[in-house]
Amino acid sequence: MSLSDVEPGVRNEEGIAAVIGVLRQRFGDQLQTGEALRAQHAHTTTYIPGQLPDAVVFPESAEDVKLIVRACADHRVPIIPFGTGTSLEGQVNAPSGGISMDLMRLNKVLEINAEDLDCTVQPGVTREQLNSDLRDTGLFFPIDPGANASIGGMASTRASGTNAVRYGTMRENVIAVTAVTASGEEIRTARRARKSSAGYDLTRLFVGSEGTLGVLTSVTLRLQGIPQAISGGVCPFPSVEAACNAVVMTIQMGIPVARIELLDALQMKACNAYSNLSNPESPSLFLEFHGTDAGVAEQATLFAEIASECGGGEFLWTTNPEQRTKLWKARHDAYWASLQLRPGAKGISTDVCVPISRLAECVVETQEDIAANGLIAPIVGHAGDGNFHVLILLDTDVPAEIKAAEDFVGRLNARALAMDGTCTGEHGIGQGKQTYLSREMGEGVSVMRQIKHALDPMNIMNPGKIFSFDG
Amino acid sequence: MSLSDVEPGVRNEEGIAAVIGVLRQRFGDQLQTGEALRAQHAHTTTYIPGQLPDAVVFPESAEDVKLIVRACADHRVPIIPFGTGTSLEGQVNAPSGGISMDLMRLNKVLEINAEDLDCTVQPGVTREQLNSDLRDTGLFFPIDPGANASIGGMASTRASGTNAVRYGTMRENVIAVTAVTASGEEIRTARRARKSSAGYDLTRLFVGSEGTLGVLTSVTLRLQGIPQAISGGVCPFPSVEAACNAVVMTIQMGIPVARIELLDALQMKACNAYSNLSNPESPSLFLEFHGTDAGVAEQATLFAEIASECGGGEFLWTTNPEQRTKLWKARHDAYWASLQLRPGAKGISTDVCVPISRLAECVVETQEDIAANGLIAPIVGHAGDGNFHVLILLDTDVPAEIKAAEDFVGRLNARALAMDGTCTGEHGIGQGKQTYLSREMGEGVSVMRQIKHALDPMNIMNPGKIFSFDG
Repeated sequence: MSLSDVEPGVRNEEGIAAVIGVLRQRFGDQLQTGEALRAQHAHTTTYIPGQLPDAVVFPESAEDVKLIVRACADHRVPIIPFGTGTSLEGQVNAPSGGISMDLMRLNKVLEINAEDLDCTVQPGVTREQLNSDLRDTGLFFPIDPGANASIGGMASTRASGTNAVRYGTMRENVIAVTAVTASGEEIRTARRARKSSAGYDLTRLFVGSEGTLGVLTSVTLRLQGIPQAISGGVCPFPSVEAACNAVVMTIQMGIPVARIELLDALQMKACNAYSNLSNPESPSLFLEFHGTDAGVAEQATLFAEIASECGGGEFLWTTNPEQRTKLWKARHDAYWASLQLRPGAKGISTDVCVPISRLAECVVETQEDIAANGLIAPIVGHAGDGNFHVLILLDTDVPAEIKAAEDFVGRLNARALAMDGTCTGEHGIGQGKQTYLSREMGEGVSVMRQIKHALDPMNIMNPGKIFSFDG
Repeated sequence: MSLSDVEPGVRNEEGIAAVIGVLRQRFGDQLQTGEALRAQHAHTTTYIPGQLPDAVVFPESAEDVKLIVRACADHRVPIIPFGTGTSLEGQVNAPSGGISMDLMRLNKVLEINAEDLDCTVQPGVTREQLNSDLRDTGLFFPIDPGANASIGGMASTRASGTNAVRYGTMRENVIAVTAVTASGEEIRTARRARKSSAGYDLTRLFVGSEGTLGVLTSVTLRLQGIPQAISGGVCPFPSVEAACNAVVMTIQMGIPVARIELLDALQMKACNAYSNLSNPESPSLFLEFHGTDAGVAEQATLFAEIASECGGGEFLWTTNPEQRTKLWKARHDAYWASLQLRPGAKGISTDVCVPISRLAECVVETQEDIAANGLIAPIVGHAGDGNFHVLILLDTDVPAEIKAAEDFVGRLNARALAMDGTCTGEHGIGQGKQTYLSREMGEGVSVMRQIKHALDPMNIMNPGKIFSFDG
C-alpha cells in the first residue's frame, strides 16, 4: 500500500451489470450511474486516489437498504456505504467496483429520550443537524471530529475529536445500532439500557467496522446535558515536553477537562499569520472546561497552577462566549492556516495515538524527523488522549515528495507502535493503513478476518477495507 | 432452562480421559481430580445446581494456558475458565464435563503506568489485591461488583456495580486483553493508547464473552486518581417514584455522582433490623460524591435541592470517613440483612436494567408482582444505571416455591424487555438466562453464534454458556 497507489480488486462484471438492472427496475431515479456523481462518491478528503463505484443508490428506508443488500448478495456485488465523504483513508473507495449506498436520505432523528439522555437517529443525520434538533432539550451530542460528518460514518470509523478526553469516543457513546448484515437480515445490537451483560458486545463490533460487516440503519446515542458554564483558555509553554507534562498532571489530578489541545510552534506561527493573531509562537495548549460556574473556575485555577509549575506562560481564560471564541481562534483555524504554510500544497494527515506518558517524546522525535527530512508539517494534538495529527504539506505531482512523505509516515507509525501506541486514534484503517494494522495487531488481524468470513462470507460489505479478505 | 435444572451436554469420554493423561504427565500436581476440589470449582453463588468438571488444572503462566488449550483442542475437550467462583448464572459449570482452568495462580500485577492511569494484571488478580497494590500510587481501580472477584472474571461477565454510574463498567475500563483462543494462539486485542480506530474492537468482543471465545491471560485496565474528597449521604423518599425522579434529575443535571443506590422500603426495614439502625423505613437513596472539597460540597448541595423538590426527607451527608461508613451501613449490609428476612432461605438475585426513565415504573410494578404472589423479595438498585436486583428468598426444597420464583423471574424479565431494557445489567447470561437472551436479542444471537463458530469451531471454550452452539 502506498500513498500514491491503491490496488484494484477483481471485478464481477456480470454481477454488477445484473444488479444495476435489478436496482434500476426497483428504484428508478434513486439509482444513478453518471460519472460525475460516481466520482463524487469516491472523492473524499483523503490523499488516496478515487476508485469509482459503478452506481450510486439512495435508499430512503431500512427496507430499501435490505432490498439493496439482498440484490447485491444475490449477485455477489460489493456494497460501499457512503455518508458525507469525509473519511481520510479511502474508506469509500470501490476497488472492485460495485454499488455505493448513499445513506444521506436516511436523515431522520427517530426519537429523543431526554430523561434517559439518549436518542436514536438514522445514519445520514449529521452531528450538526442532531445538535440543532436537540437545541430545545438542554442536551447535546458531544463528539466533534471536525467535519460535519454523518452519525453513521462517525460510528463506522469510531470517530472522536477534540472532546473525547471528557466524553469518550463513538465507542463509549453508541448505545446500540441496527444494521443490515450481508445476509440481508436487520439486527439490533442492544437495548436502550445504559449497561448490559447480555452476550457478545455486538454494538462495539459494529462501531469501527468501517462498513465491512453491514450497513447501519439506525444509531442510538448517549447525550449529555449542556453544561451550565463553559470556559476556554490558552497557555503557551517553553517546550512540547513542558506542555505535555501539564497535560499528564491535569489528567492525573482528575480535572475533568473537556478539551485539551496541543499546537506546536510551527502550527502557532501558521495560525498567527493566517488569522492575524499575536499568540506566542511556542507550543501551546488550548483548553475548555465544562461544569457549574464554580466548577469551571476551580478547574481553571487548578490548571493555571499546574501550567505555572510546568514552566508555562500566562493562562488566559474566560467564560465569555465571544472572548472564548477569540482565544480559541488559532485552534479553530489551524487546518486552513497550515495549508497557507505552502500555498497550493496538499495536506496529508497522520493519526498516531500513544500512551500520554510518551506523547512528548513521540512529538519531539517526530519534529526532529520532520526537520531532518526537510518536510513542512505542523502538528495539532488531542493531547489528553495522546493522539496527534501531523499535516504533511506536499506537492503530489513530485514523486520524490510522495516517497519522502510515505517514508516519514512509516517511521512515525513505527515510532508510535514502539511506544505501545496505535497507528490510528480516530481516522480508521480503510485502505491506507492496512500494513500498519498488521504490525500493530499481529494475530489479532486473523481473528478479525475470521469474524469477517463468518458474517460476510462472500465479501460484499465494503471489500478491500481494514484488512485483505484472503489474508 | 429452569431454576431447578440444567441440561447436561454430550460428554466426550475418550477425549476427557486422554487429555487428563496428557495434562497429568505435563503438569503433575497442578492437575487435580479429587471430587471435593472439582465440586468447589462448580460451586458458586448461583441457584443453579453444580455440574462438575472432570479435572481442575492450575496454570502458572500464559505458556501453561497455551499448552492446556492445545491439549484440550487436540482432544476436543471443554475448558472452563475459573476465577473466584462468584458468578451468578452457572458460568463455571461443566455441562459436558472437561477441564476447569483455575487461573488464580496467575495473580501478578504485571505493570502499573501511573502517568498513563493504567495497569496490566494477570486474570487471577482480585480487585482488592489490585487496589492494595495501587495504594502508594494515588490511583485506584473503581469497579466494585460487591464480591472480591478476579479481574479476569469481572472482564468476562462485563461486571460493574455501585459506581458504574460514574466510572463505567468493565466495558469502558478494559483497555486491552491478551487471550489464548481455541486454536491455542495468544492474541493481544489492542495497544495501550487511550483510544484507537484500528479495526474491529476485539477488546470489547472478549469483555463479556464469559470465557466462550478464549482464556484471558492478562487484562490492561484504566485507573482513576483517588479523589481529594469523598462524601457520602442518605436520603429517604415518600415513594419509589419520588426517589427515581430525583435520580433522573441528578443524572440530567450532569452531577457526577459516584454512587446512587436505591433501597426499597422492605430492604430498609431488613437493614434496620439486621444492623440495629433507625433509618426511615421508606425507599431511600444512598449517594457518594467524588471530587475536590468544594466540588463534593457543591454536588451535595445540588442534590439536596433536587431531593427536596422531589419530596424527599432530610439529606444527611458527610465527608468524614467514619460517619460516611455509618450513613452507608444499611447499604453495605443489605445482602446479609435481606437473608435474615427469612432465616434459612436461599436468595436468588435478578438483574434487569432499564432506561432510567422507566426505573420507577419497573420497580413499582415488580413490587406489586411480589406482593400479589406472596414472595419475600427486597430490592436494591444501582439506580443511576437503571439496574436493580430483586433478592427472592425461597426454600429451594419446595417445588412450588421454585416454580413461583421462576414465573416471577420470567415476568420481571419480560417487563424489562418491554421497557427497552435488558435481562442482565451485570451478571451475564451463563446458563440461567439463555431463553431471555433470545427474546432480547432476536437475530443478534445468530450473529453471536456465527462469531463463536468462527473462533471456536469445536466448541471447546466454556460450552453451554450464553447461547446453545447449535442454535
